[in-house]
Amino acid sequence: MLSSLSVTDLLNEIASNSPAPGGGSVSALAASLGAALTSMVCRLTIGKKKYIDVQMEIENVLKRSEDLRVQFIAIIDEDTKAFNKVMVAYGLPKETEDQKVKRIGEIQNALKTATLVPLKLMELCREAMELVKIVVEKGNQNSISDASVAALMFQAGCDGAALNVKINLGSVSDTDFVEETKMKMDHFSTSLKSSTADIFAYVTKHIG
Amino acid sequence: MLSSLSVTDLLNEIASNSPAPGGGSVSALAASLGAALTSMVCRLTIGKKKYIDVQMEIENVLKRSEDLRVQFIAIIDEDTKAFNKVMVAYGLPKETEDQKVKRIGEIQNALKTATLVPLKLMELCREAMELVKIVVEKGNQNSISDASVAALMFQAGCDGAALNVKINLGSVSDTDFVEETKMKMDHFSTSLKSSTADIFAYVTKHIG
Repeated sequence: MLSSLSVTDLLNEIASNSPAPGGGSVSALAASLGAALTSMVCRLTIGKKKYIDVQMEIENVLKRSEDLRVQFIAIIDEDTKAFNKVMVAYGLPKETEDQKVKRIGEIQNALKTATLVPLKLMELCREAMELVKIVVEKGNQNSISDASVAALMFQAGCDGAALNVKINLGSVSDTDFVEETKMKMDHFSTSLKSSTADIFAYVTKHIG
Repeated sequence: MLSSLSVTDLLNEIASNSPAPGGGSVSALAASLGAALTSMVCRLTIGKKKYIDVQMEIENVLKRSEDLRVQFIAIIDEDTKAFNKVMVAYGLPKETEDQKVKRIGEIQNALKTATLVPLKLMELCREAMELVKIVVEKGNQNSISDASVAALMFQAGCDGAALNVKINLGSVSDTDFVEETKMKMDHFSTSLKSSTADIFAYVTKHIG
């Protein structure tokens, strides 16, 4: 697993002349960082007298945030695997008619997976951004900049995932799949932007 | 060094109930990821016939990108250290008049450092974004989404750093320092936004 590498080694892997891990895995890692920060702010809120009224709500956010963190970390690898699967499919033999048909089928399947992995990341970032909205407004106000950085990570993770959906979707021939995916992508983007706008309206009012 | 930890262990450190490493270190790590992606796109461009005309320019970008990566990784630790120094200063004894004066001086010094570290991060993200602008337009066009994710990481890193500058600057009493820092911050933000706008205008035209 890529997350078992040291940070330095993972950065070296990314920076190498191999196309994976690339932008998709980096987007998932950014979201993992956002989830870790969200959990930190929850933990700096729970048990504090001043925040006794929101104790249960923040405990619930912490549970969901930790669950999302596990899913984000899994996507770091899933995206790299999905990309490699596309490369393998393109490399299949194409001498005979049978081989050609088989190859095209494999490429299309692999491209769909490589689209669905970042689409899932977008959906989870949207969910995570709703958690940040709660934490930034109701959590420990000394950690407001940390909660804001979490929001920035989910925004970057979601935008990065959207780019990866688009680039793979461009080669998918199943028009129903393309339309459905575009609709979902727009829905996740719009919904996430709405939470982000609320978060930064609050943050700007409180730290300028 | 935080970067010698595994990704999983660093995420656990961030998510723990200790306020550091927090948003400042995460912003520096996001920028490190951006630099690694920029270097990857350079390496996927260098040596390719199609990009022979930009070979030397991209080799130069790679050198600068790798140098920036080292500096971003260093800031992951510097930010956590700067934050801890502020905490230590606040914890100094304040029984006698001498102690009070000494404590206030230490707090102010520590706050200035905790401001200058993310300010440096903003400056370096601005520089890095100029490299992405070159890479996205002239580098391997198969890696355009990776270069775009690099841009998203520098944007998030710079915005996260700006929040950390602001939050520390709010407690700095030296008005000259405050004004000068605000001017620099605005300059870096504006300059970075200009490169980002160019990058995404190009990306939108090419991948929608």
